[in-house]
Amino acid sequence: MADTLVAEQAANRTTVQVDLGSRSYPIKIGRSLLAEAGAEIANVLPGARLAVVTDETVARFHLDALRTSLDAASLDHTVITVPPGESTKCYAEFERVCDEVLAARLERGDAVVALGGGVVGDLTGYVAASVRRGMVFVQLPTTLLAQVDSSVGGKTGINSRHGKNLIGAFHQPALVLADTGILDTLPMRDFRAGYAEVVKYGLLGDAAFFAWLEDNWQAIFSGGPEREEAVARSCQAKADVVAADELESGRRALLNLGHTFGHALEAAVSYETSRLVHGEGVSIGMMLAHEFSERLGLIGPETVERVHKHLSDAGLPVKIQDIPGQLPPAETFLDIIAQDKKVTRGALTFILTRGIGEAFVEKGVEPALVTDFLKEKLVP
Amino acid sequence: MADTLVAEQAANRTTVQVDLGSRSYPIKIGRSLLAEAGAEIANVLPGARLAVVTDETVARFHLDALRTSLDAASLDHTVITVPPGESTKCYAEFERVCDEVLAARLERGDAVVALGGGVVGDLTGYVAASVRRGMVFVQLPTTLLAQVDSSVGGKTGINSRHGKNLIGAFHQPALVLADTGILDTLPMRDFRAGYAEVVKYGLLGDAAFFAWLEDNWQAIFSGGPEREEAVARSCQAKADVVAADELESGRRALLNLGHTFGHALEAAVSYETSRLVHGEGVSIGMMLAHEFSERLGLIGPETVERVHKHLSDAGLPVKIQDIPGQLPPAETFLDIIAQDKKVTRGALTFILTRGIGEAFVEKGVEPALVTDFLKEKLVP
Ligand SMILES: NC(=O)c1ccc[n+]([C@@H]2O[C@H](COP(=O)([O-])OP(=O)(O)OC[C@H]3O[C@@H](n4cnc5c(N)ncnc54)[C@H](O)[C@@H]3O)[C@@H](O)[C@H]2O)c1
Ligand SMILES: NC(=O)c1ccc[n+]([C@@H]2O[C@H](COP(=O)([O-])OP(=O)(O)OC[C@H]3O[C@@H](n4cnc5c(N)ncnc54)[C@H](O)[C@@H]3O)[C@@H](O)[C@H]2O)c1
Ligand SMILES: [Zn+2]
Ligand SMILES: [Zn+2]
Repeated sequence: MADTLVAEQAANRTTVQVDLGSRSYPIKIGRSLLAEAGAEIANVLPGARLAVVTDETVARFHLDALRTSLDAASLDHTVITVPPGESTKCYAEFERVCDEVLAARLERGDAVVALGGGVVGDLTGYVAASVRRGMVFVQLPTTLLAQVDSSVGGKTGINSRHGKNLIGAFHQPALVLADTGILDTLPMRDFRAGYAEVVKYGLLGDAAFFAWLEDNWQAIFSGGPEREEAVARSCQAKADVVAADELESGRRALLNLGHTFGHALEAAVSYETSRLVHGEGVSIGMMLAHEFSERLGLIGPETVERVHKHLSDAGLPVKIQDIPGQLPPAETFLDIIAQDKKVTRGALTFILTRGIGEAFVEKGVEPALVTDFLKEKLVP
Repeated sequence: MADTLVAEQAANRTTVQVDLGSRSYPIKIGRSLLAEAGAEIANVLPGARLAVVTDETVARFHLDALRTSLDAASLDHTVITVPPGESTKCYAEFERVCDEVLAARLERGDAVVALGGGVVGDLTGYVAASVRRGMVFVQLPTTLLAQVDSSVGGKTGINSRHGKNLIGAFHQPALVLADTGILDTLPMRDFRAGYAEVVKYGLLGDAAFFAWLEDNWQAIFSGGPEREEAVARSCQAKADVVAADELESGRRALLNLGHTFGHALEAAVSYETSRLVHGEGVSIGMMLAHEFSERLGLIGPETVERVHKHLSDAGLPVKIQDIPGQLPPAETFLDIIAQDKKVTRGALTFILTRGIGEAFVEKGVEPALVTDFLKEKLVP
């Protein structure tokens, strides 16, 4: 135990524990963790057989390292590869991956492992939740977004033509290993998009973290030890909210800061990631949430300006016009928002804010107010 | 409240409570309950919008009565119809029904209602578990099998080409209404098949119930008040086991008495229900479990004979040769059994018995013993 701790410190390792009673699990964070994945998994699941699900891009960069590590730990495994991209979160891939896991004859105590970003994690988690009504699930998140957000909290799922993430399950992993070095191969655009979610944790509930990000964002991007710290603090922030509200009935909704608008923007471009990826939508969505809060008299222009500066410094889009191409009219956005899953009996729910780190859930937002606001924001 | 109780007694109503903490729910049992479905649902879910899923056959007989009752309670509802038969429990129907529920714009507190047998219940329950990661679920079981078995316990799912019920979720209903009068339109063959599951509860843990069934089975078939009693005692038996072991890690396995063999038989005929329906497989499977127990010296021939007599009196098949057409060799059966979901790391798990009402879980059954036994049983 003491040895592990020493080794952890030497290698700059952190563990964030997600407390969910019998479904509690650790998120381990550090450079080169992938090389230890075999040992870590064997530790939690001795003798388990694995189905590793990954996408073609991630496989090219990191699959060999994982297989070497699994082989070294004598973990029998099969690999299932899916195409990269949001469109992989669909019924057809769900069916194919489920059937491949079954074809590999995994038994109930065996594990399904996601090696990839949020797309692979969400799809694989839903497969793990569904095959034999629940297999053990391990996450090896390879994007910043997946490390700080999608791999924490147990939300899994696929998209329907009616909207994103509308089909899925709550299914907690048994173990998450976030290798921060793996992010070095990530395209800058995806790194930035993930960074929007990091900023979100500051904005929703931790002004000091936001201030720390203003000072340290370059080191996070360039791969200093600040990156581990940013990932760990983000995971901790999400884990705290999730532990308080596993099934998303109350406080967890705060994590949707920027997401109601963000999802609507993603839907408006038909999830064309060439135009907008999730984190970019969240960045613009957070700006809109702050501007809408300003409009309602909750915050002053200097707060909006401060958020605007940090997001644009980090290279993130900050207004609807930053999205290339045509966009639908405000009414269409409202329609998308109403069909979004955060709707309760017609009234609109938004995450608004009273200042940096002071977001709150507002359940009774008048649809007409939103339409008017969006109309202005959509003027070219 | 007092009024309800009086009415319940007058109408010969029983309620079995399934105790699962915050997921507890009542199963209400009685004649003509369908006419009260609207009031009952409105009571639990005031103002909810409903998606009713049913199959074409059930719709022909009972959908009008349900709609009238829902309209009377001012419950807004949409109807989604699937083809009857086991092949409806597939990915394609799952996708279609999910998308239709979403198209109906149901929100999170709204409900998905299954009106049908086990096929409709299993598919609909999995849809309810998955849409928006969990919608409220109401079961209106219309077959004897669904009333005494599939609507109790929260197992939902669909079939994969690798086997039955391999994709699914545990998702408890909020309410189950078992209208025993609805069973009058059920084909005799399906009634008998459901009766096999009723007999199962006696055989696995309640010798007195089995003896009561020997005396009262004709009244159950013909629709006397014994039918309500049989449904209620069966539900209670299953509810007790489920409450003790919701996620099927231990005692719940007893409910699989007859099912390891039964599922293998169903798979062997490729789920051709013209040759074998689930309950018929269970009937033959229970005979095989008793004969295998006799072979292992656990029970004597008189016990086997008593079970044989009751099942055949009730018109159920009791041996493999009762299945029309060709069957695969014993080795194929073993292969099917090994891929069955009750396998743990290679050893075979069977439910065996030490006498009527004394079934137990045996985890270390030698595969060769089973192959030899089946070889004999397969001799024409
Ligand atoms: N479950 C949740 O709680 C949750 C939360 C937030 C977002 N999400 C979901 O996450 C998804 C977005 O996740 P994402 O941004 O990680 O997208 P992604 O999984 O599509 O990854 C982005 C791209 O980067 C590539 N990639 C991944 N890791 C790489 C690496 N280390 N090096 C090089 N390339 C790499 C991928 O192949 C892909 O092309 C969305 O579907 C969103 O709905 C889920
Ligand atoms: N979830 C569980 O715990 C569980 C337990 C046991 C069985 N099952 C599943 O249940 C399914 C079998 O259920 P089933 O036997 O009810 O089959 P089913 O749903 O196919 O119904 C049998 C037939 O009867 C018709 N029917 C239903 N109700 C009728 C009525 N009142 N009048 C006239 N016709 C009617 C149906 O259209 C169908 O053709 C299998 O898929 C099995 O795997 C699930
Ligand atoms: Zn997000
Ligand atoms: Zn059964």
